Order: sequence, then C-alpha cells, then structure tokens
Amino acid sequence: MNATALADLSADDLAALLEEQRAAYDDLKARGLKLDLTRGKPSSQQLDLADDLLRLPTSTKDASGTDVRNYGGLQGLQELREMFAELLWVDADQVVAGGNSSLSMMRDCLVWMMLFGAVDSERPWGREEKVRFVCPVPGYDRHFTLLESLGIEMLTVPMREDGPDAEAVAALVADDPSIKGMWIVPTYANPTGAICSQEVAARLAAMPTAAPDFKIFWDNAYALHHLTADEAKSADILTLASAAGHPDRPIMFASTSKISYAGAGVAFIAASAGNVSWYLAHLGTGSIGPDKVNQLRHAEFFGSAQGVRDHMVKHREIIAPKFAEVDRVLSERLGGRGVATWNTPTGGYFVNLDVVPGTASRVVALAKEAGIALTPAGSSFPYKRDPDDTNIRLAPTMPPLEEVTAAMEGVATCVLLAAAEKAAAA
Amino acid sequence: MNATALADLSADDLAALLEEQRAAYDDLKARGLKLDLTRGKPSSQQLDLADDLLRLPTSTKDASGTDVRNYGGLQGLQELREMFAELLWVDADQVVAGGNSSLSMMRDCLVWMMLFGAVDSERPWGREEKVRFVCPVPGYDRHFTLLESLGIEMLTVPMREDGPDAEAVAALVADDPSIKGMWIVPTYANPTGAICSQEVAARLAAMPTAAPDFKIFWDNAYALHHLTADEAKSADILTLASAAGHPDRPIMFASTSKISYAGAGVAFIAASAGNVSWYLAHLGTGSIGPDKVNQLRHAEFFGSAQGVRDHMVKHREIIAPKFAEVDRVLSERLGGRGVATWNTPTGGYFVNLDVVPGTASRVVALAKEAGIALTPAGSSFPYKRDPDDTNIRLAPTMPPLEEVTAAMEGVATCVLLAAAEKAAAA
Repeated sequence: MNATALADLSADDLAALLEEQRAAYDDLKARGLKLDLTRGKPSSQQLDLADDLLRLPTSTKDASGTDVRNYGGLQGLQELREMFAELLWVDADQVVAGGNSSLSMMRDCLVWMMLFGAVDSERPWGREEKVRFVCPVPGYDRHFTLLESLGIEMLTVPMREDGPDAEAVAALVADDPSIKGMWIVPTYANPTGAICSQEVAARLAAMPTAAPDFKIFWDNAYALHHLTADEAKSADILTLASAAGHPDRPIMFASTSKISYAGAGVAFIAASAGNVSWYLAHLGTGSIGPDKVNQLRHAEFFGSAQGVRDHMVKHREIIAPKFAEVDRVLSERLGGRGVATWNTPTGGYFVNLDVVPGTASRVVALAKEAGIALTPAGSSFPYKRDPDDTNIRLAPTMPPLEEVTAAMEGVATCVLLAAAEKAAAA
Repeated sequence: MNATALADLSADDLAALLEEQRAAYDDLKARGLKLDLTRGKPSSQQLDLADDLLRLPTSTKDASGTDVRNYGGLQGLQELREMFAELLWVDADQVVAGGNSSLSMMRDCLVWMMLFGAVDSERPWGREEKVRFVCPVPGYDRHFTLLESLGIEMLTVPMREDGPDAEAVAALVADDPSIKGMWIVPTYANPTGAICSQEVAARLAAMPTAAPDFKIFWDNAYALHHLTADEAKSADILTLASAAGHPDRPIMFASTSKISYAGAGVAFIAASAGNVSWYLAHLGTGSIGPDKVNQLRHAEFFGSAQGVRDHMVKHREIIAPKFAEVDRVLSERLGGRGVATWNTPTGGYFVNLDVVPGTASRVVALAKEAGIALTPAGSSFPYKRDPDDTNIRLAPTMPPLEEVTAAMEGVATCVLLAAAEKAAAA
C-alpha cells in the first residue's frame, strides 16, 4: 500500500483528497446503482444447488416405516436427527428437528423461559424483578431484537478473535443472579467471523454463575459454512458443560437455512436430555409435530452427514470469491489510509468493517443515497446503538460477483469521503 | 329398533343381558384386536390424494417474481392467501399464511397476548390478576391444554346444535373483565359436529363484553370438510364483528392439515387489519418468513379455490362411508336400548357419543383392554373433567372401513356392558 494515512496528510493534501472523494462520490451517484449488501442471504446460484429438493422425497415413509405425511413425531425425523447429530458432534437423542427457522426455536426457548422458567429455574423468568443477558458485540441484530421484545436487558462484552471476552463474561455472571443467559455465535460469528476457541468455550461452560439457571444460547448458524479448506471445528459445548457439572447450561441452535433453502430448510436444537425433555414438553402443547415431509426431503437429498459436508464445498466455491473481492477492493482502495479495518473471515456470511469512529452512520447514509443498501449502522449492537459509530456489517453472499465489486468500490468511496470530511472538520 | 331400553327390563332380563354382554366382551377380547379411534387423523388413502405435492413446485418464483426459496415474505405467499381468502370469505390482506400448524398460530397468539397484550389491550394479559376463557363443551382437548399451560382459567358453556349457548356466553362476559376470550370451532365442531348459526355468530360478535380486548378464537379447522353434498357455509365472523363495531374481536384459524398433508400443510390466520399488523409485528421478531416453497407447492397443487373444493369431494368419498358405518353399527347395536345418544355429523372428523352417565371412563377402559384405543374419557372437557362421565369422542377417519366396523362393534359391546353393569348395580 503506498497510500498515505489521512492523519499524516497536510491540510492542503487533505482538502485535495476531500475534493477528489466528493467528485468520486458524485460519479458514484450518477451511476444510479441499486445494490444490496444488507442481509446474509444466499444467492440464487447457491439455492440452485439444492433444487433436487423440488422432486423429493421419493418415499412417504421414514426409516421406521412411519408415514411422514401424517401428524406426529414431535422430536423430528430420526434419520435427519442422526445426520445432523454427527455434524454437530452430539447424539441424535439430544437433537430436535423443527420447522424452517432456528430463530423461531430461539424465540420459543426464551418465551417459555419467561413464562414457565427453564428446566432448572426456581420460577418463571417473567416473575423475576429483572432479567439480563450478556451480549458479545458486535453481534447478531435479531438476537438483540428478541431480547428487547421480551424486556430482557442487555449487557455487552467485547467479541474477540477467539470468541467472547470470557473473563468479562465470568466477572459479570459471578455475582448477578439477574443475568440469566448469554448469546454466542461460536463459529464464524455474525458479524466478526470469530471462532470461539476450546479454551473460551470451556471457560463459559465451567464459570460459576449466580443464576442457577444460566443459559448459553449457542447459535451455531455457521458451523459448516467454511470459506477455506481450513475448516474450523466448533467447540463441543454440550460435552464441556456436562463435564463441568452444568449439563443444562447450553442450548445449541443450527439450521439448513444456508445449506439447502434459506426459507424452506430445517432447524435444529441440540441440548442435554433435561433440556430436550423441557423443550418437547412445551412444544407439545402447541404443535402436533414438525413438517416431516420436508425433513425426509432433506434426509434423502443429503444422504449422509458427508453429503452435507460435500454440499457445503459447492457453496464455498460460489461465495469465497465474493469475500475475496470484498477484501481486494477494501485493500486497494483503503489500504494504508488509516480509515478502516476489516476482517478476512474464514467462514460465515459477513465481513465486519470498522470505519473512522463517528462516521459509520455517515457512510451508510452516503451509500444509501448512491443506491447501495448497507445494514443500518449500529445494527450489530443492542438497541442498535454502536457507542463508537464505527461498525458496519457487510453481507456479500447474495449479489453476483460483479455487483459485489461495484458495491464495494462505492462503499470504499463513501468510507474515504466520510473520513476526509471528518478529518477536514477537525 | 325392537330392542328394549335397559330401564324397562325386568331384573331377570337385565341379569341375562349382563351375562350376554359379558360373554360378548370375552369374545371381543379373545379376538386380540389392535384398533385406534383416538385422534382425528386422515387415512393413508386420503393423504395419497395429495401426493402430487411430492413433485411440486415446478417453479421457484411466486407470481410476483420473488424467489420462494430465500428468506422473507412474512405474511406468506400472496397467491395462496388469495386462494384461501376466497374459501374463508375474507380479503387476502386479512390472511397470514404460516407454517404447518394452526395450533402453533393459536399458541403464538395466546402467548403474545399474555406477554404483550392484544392489539386493544390496556396491558399484557399476564399482568392481569386473572385471565379466563369461555370454553363451549364438549370441545377440542388441545384448545384446553393450551389455556391450562398458560394458567388461563376455563369456564364452560354448553355446545348446542347451532353453536355455543350464546346467551350463556353473553351473560358470562358482560360483567367480568377477567374473561378475555373464548374458543369456538364454528363449523362441524370438534367433537359434536355442530354448525354455528349466523344468529349465534352475530350474537357473539355483537355482545357487550366487560373486557375491552375480548377475543373470539374462531378455529375454523373444518370449514371445508363436508360429509354430505349439503355444504355448510361458515358464518362470516369477521364481517359480523366489524359491523358490530368490534373488528378486532375475532381471529380465525384454518389449515390444509386435513386437506393436503396432516403434518406438512399450510396454516392460516384471518383477522382485521389491526390484528394482522399486531400478529406480524410479533411474528417478525422471531421469524424471517414461512416456508414459501411449501406454500407455492400448495398453490400449484390446488390451482384455485375451486381446486380445493374439488379436492375435498375426494376426501368425502373416502370418509363419508366410515361415518355412515359408525352410525349403522351404533344404531343396530344400541338403538332403542336407552344407553347412548350420538350425532350424525354432516362434516368434520368426529362422532360425539354420549353413553350412560357415569360409564364413559368404564367404556373407554373396557375398550382399551379389548385392544380398541379410544380418546380418554373427559378429553373434550377442560382439565379433562367430564362432570357427567358420559362423553366419548370417536374419530373414524384413519382406520380402513373394515376396522371401523370391527372397532364400533367392540365399542357397542363395551357401551352395553358398562350400562348393564351400572343398571344391575343400581
């Protein structure tokens, strides 16, 4: 990189840069783009990979001979649970296969804990004076929205490269019984791409908590979503927690949303025997069973756990070049400027871009005006408040590669312009 | 019928009858039957009618060009909503198409009312000192279980041939603000087969309620499930309520569970604009959209509202003979005996059998010992308590016709034996 950091520019050079970026931004606007990097959605090309689903299942009976078209089977199809148990390193008995949304399973767990209490609660969480959760930041906006909707207060801890700051978490939960749980996306975190290490996972599993019914919502949404051949293995949180004497602490969530079809996949929870019984007992009052036809459809489509892994390689071949392109454009345009840092994730669906503090909202607004939709600044923080106004989540999977290039060129212009504006005003 | 009522038999004749039935029951047990009339499940033959679903959809885009495989579309597929709006006599905007279970949609509504309040509530129902519901009896056991799980108290009113006893309901709700709602299966009720008349519906829609946020949970599970060519038209509860100045009072539920696949259909709610907005707002915190592939699969399969109606005729051809057989066996075996009354439903999934008061549990136990599974006595009442121990729900759709015959012959023996036992002991 031979560009000069903005902080090192003379006033004249800074003024020149500002003019240059204003001109570049006017050009950008004139192009009348309509690009979208907002959400972690798979592209059509990725969805096409699973189109054999449209002609499945070929059978209407599961391996045990049960008619999948009829009611029943609350825990989900045995053969699909076995397949994903292998992928998630748990036992099939620990897995519940549900509908098309792991987010809905998270909501159900939270709602039932509020209304009825967790399996190890003294009373419903809703009867506590206050309920709080620890939220590593930046994190997943929908996790935070769920908590906010239920009136659960959020305390933040930093997300690091090896997962949440475990010491900070441990310090918070040790003395405060109102802290009932925490979120974590352990593998290829949304949005930082962080991978929770075995050590951090072990610490979270073993740490003393003032609340006897503390829960780790272990959202393993990207467990299998590798971007390189160096495939991260998620920490085995259920075993770690069980070994530490807290078998009911973690509840794992996963789904095929970004494996098969985003809107028509199968979601899973994996947890202790106690948690599974608890979940099924509450599930059963409002459900006569999941869509077993779709579960059999998926079991036939993948064939085996290895079939799922093989399928993920095809996804990688489609999306890894998009992530590489994000990195290339940011490096070429912003490298050395001292205006942004970003990660190069080895999996997952996001690039985490940190711009000059105080300019993230401005960057997103500039991009929007130029026809490039970005996730609103602050979205990766509870209550949508990024205290430093620095964080932007980029989701490059859905647009075609050439649109990723165009969008990222535009984003780079906006980042530079906002940084130059701020430096000039200082 | 030339049989003599038990009450008119001499002591000797009664003793002879008791012996005769004991012998018949021993013969029944000796047959080693394994028959099941417990739940309203469609038969394999009915499920086969929808097997073209296994090769659908042929497209992956809906009518608006949206890729159904991806996330989004919280309210559900427009063309499927239009189709079922026509069938339910509402507007497509009033319909939400969801997952595979209308029961889950009912649960969600109740849970959100408890946690957040209904659209017209002053506060969450969970913050009220007490919440009660009016439950017409006999009714649907899962409705009652849902309420019980949420700590909602149940008050019963009689179910009549034209629907719930509207005067009794009106009297209850007029002065008691803790009564927040009521259940009703308006068309071919579970289990009595009753059809709620326009007059009763209008009364329920218009009656003054002490609770400003009173809700009618209008579970139209069998709206299209006719057993004769004389097809009942459900009362238009949304219009009636709107005309009476209570647009937000009713929430209608329906599904294709007993139209396409019991476990893999599509469920719907239909309600006022206010209720739909309320529902979607809460739904959206925990869902990124329903399984639109399955919704498109259904839209393609049925083609139109008329396609659904035509499909239901095929169901009728399969199940009407089973209902006729129930009536034939009961009439031949029990007619004139004064030991039972039952209905001959013109739609739905159940026959409601009332036996000699105090003997329903005995009949179910006798049947069970003889290998005939019946829904537990009392199931159609809140807290599973039938005050008269008289009611038994028969569900004849699932077994093949010859098994319906065998099961009903056995049931008739058990009813007679229990009645004779009771009369002899008197």
